[in-house]
Order: sequence, then C-alpha cells, then structure tokens
Amino acid sequence: MEHVQKAVRRLAAAAPGAGSFIRPQLLTPIVRTFSQSHDLSQNVPGTLWNLGRLNHVAIAVPDLKMAKSFYKNMLGAKVSEVVPVPEHGVSVVFVELGNTKLELLHPLGNQSPIEGFLKKNEAGGMHHICIEVDDIEAAVTDLKEKKIRILSDKAKIGAHGKPVIFLHPKDCGGVLVELEQA
Amino acid sequence: MEHVQKAVRRLAAAAPGAGSFIRPQLLTPIVRTFSQSHDLSQNVPGTLWNLGRLNHVAIAVPDLKMAKSFYKNMLGAKVSEVVPVPEHGVSVVFVELGNTKLELLHPLGNQSPIEGFLKKNEAGGMHHICIEVDDIEAAVTDLKEKKIRILSDKAKIGAHGKPVIFLHPKDCGGVLVELEQA
Repeated sequence: MEHVQKAVRRLAAAAPGAGSFIRPQLLTPIVRTFSQSHDLSQNVPGTLWNLGRLNHVAIAVPDLKMAKSFYKNMLGAKVSEVVPVPEHGVSVVFVELGNTKLELLHPLGNQSPIEGFLKKNEAGGMHHICIEVDDIEAAVTDLKEKKIRILSDKAKIGAHGKPVIFLHPKDCGGVLVELEQA
Repeated sequence: MEHVQKAVRRLAAAAPGAGSFIRPQLLTPIVRTFSQSHDLSQNVPGTLWNLGRLNHVAIAVPDLKMAKSFYKNMLGAKVSEVVPVPEHGVSVVFVELGNTKLELLHPLGNQSPIEGFLKKNEAGGMHHICIEVDDIEAAVTDLKEKKIRILSDKAKIGAHGKPVIFLHPKDCGGVLVELEQA
C-alpha cells in the first residue's frame, strides 16, 4: 500500500491544485457494463482468500517469432524459447521482466482459445491478466456468492500446472481476468 | 531468467512429450504486422540501456467507481482513491498487486487520450503496458536507430512525473508499450 501512497503523493506533487480542474460530470460513466444485479458497494472482501501478485500479462500475437525477436532484439528483454502447450492450444514465449512476465501466445492446434481473439484483433493484443490467489477454491466459492461469472464450473489445471479460473470480462471492466493458485 | 527457466521446466513437466504434438504449419504467422523494413534478427540489444520491471498495466474503464469497487470488494485488492490527472486527461485508480500495479483509467476533460479507445471498446479493456528503463534517452536513440516508431519526437513527462515514451503498437505486436524512466 505504501507504493500506492507514494505514487499518489507523486501524482499530487506533479499536479498541484488538480482538484480545481475536476469536472464532476466527467466522472459520470459512459456506459455501464459491470454486473449490476447486486450493489457492489455493499459487498465486503472475502476473508478466506487473498489476492496476490500479478503472475503474467498474456499477449496474443499473430507471429510468435517476430514478437519474440521484438522483445529480445529491440527491447533487450530476456526471453524463453518457444514452448508448445498443446493441452491449452497455444505456443508460448515467456518475456521476463524481473517482477513479473509477459506471455506471448500463438494458436496451436485446431481449437485454440486465442484463435477467435486473433481473428478479431489481427495485429495481436493483450488477451488477459493473471493474478495469483492463495486459495483458489475459496475464491471460487466466494466469487460465485458475489455473482461474479466464472467461465468454468470449477478450477481447472492451467498452463503452469496449477488450478486456475477465468472471470467473465463483462464482470471485470472489459478485461479477461485469470486467477491462479499461487 | 531463473524464473523463466523454472516456468519452462514446469511447463515441460506439465506437458510431457509435447514436442510430438507440434504441427509446424501452425507456427506459420496468420498475418504479419510487425514493421518489416528491417530484419529484426540482425539487430542486437542496445548495450547503453536496460529494460526493467513492469511498472503497470493500464486498463481503460467506462465506469471508474464500478471498476474500483470490483477490484476492492470482489477481489479484495488494495486500491487508491480516484486521482485526477488533468494534464494527461485521465482520472486514475491504482490497484496494488504487490509486485506491480494496475491503473484503472477513465477520461477526464475534452481531449482525453483514452476517449477514442473507449468508443471502440465500450466495455473497457487493457490500454497499454508500462515497462521501466534505466536510461530513457539512450532508449529513444537506440529505438530510433532500430526503426521502432515512437509516438513523440522525444520523451515527455508522464503521469508519474517521469519521462516516458510510447512505442507504436504496430511495431510491438499490437500492444501499446510505454517505456518510463525508472
């Protein structure tokens, strides 16, 4: 939390008197897309599980070799070899950033979960974020009670060999969120 | 790199004999979208600057209060108050994930850089990733030589009060990449 507080202080320092620029009407939502069957503000965080670190950002790419070369040769990042993960229908290159990693994904096989995404986004793009949790089963129970839609009945073994769930993007502000057992 | 190697070993363990499933034709790119005016493979990483940690993942959201409530009340994340940053045309909520953070962005003012993105993506979505570098000026010089398109002539002061540049998504596999002076 200290990190956030520091960032907020930095922002405040960078934008003195920013408050006077706020126009309340601009905070009015453009569209409402979150699940509204319940009042979010009345929910309290589950006490049986905790959100952890960002495990990775998954990026679907139309050309895995080119994407790998960009991160390695243009940005000087540490990258893995291409890792085929046929059970999950993807080939993966890991880009190590020290505190977390990017996962460059390319379809593998005929029923790849990212095939449709790449058809809609031919240039590629960010596909999902993966956040670790300390108890995936408790998270599943809690999120179901909170009416957050989960894309499977229960946790499944993910690409890292650990149980994962995916949350419906429409319940997560347009972002596909994966939760993975730490 | 050890982290990547571990992950690769885990994947290998989770997918024994995966190599036999590889179909070479599936590695053929669907479309080529990277800049191809130069052969990426002939470039070598710049030695004058280094890529660092993932500073944040920026997520454009149509409803900042709902998005904040989702991360706080549904996932139990530590979130900041809404921080207006009028010079950059956004209001921001920081979601602290321990190793890095998410930045939930909503348009502020009439010329917000995320207004167009939200028109195209009404439900919201991942807008960019920000990676730290140890020498932004050296990075600018090096990336210009490598023909990577930068969206400004030189580094500008970003939302954290530090110099930043944005790289053209078409040179980065469809992803808007921000580099920020660490």
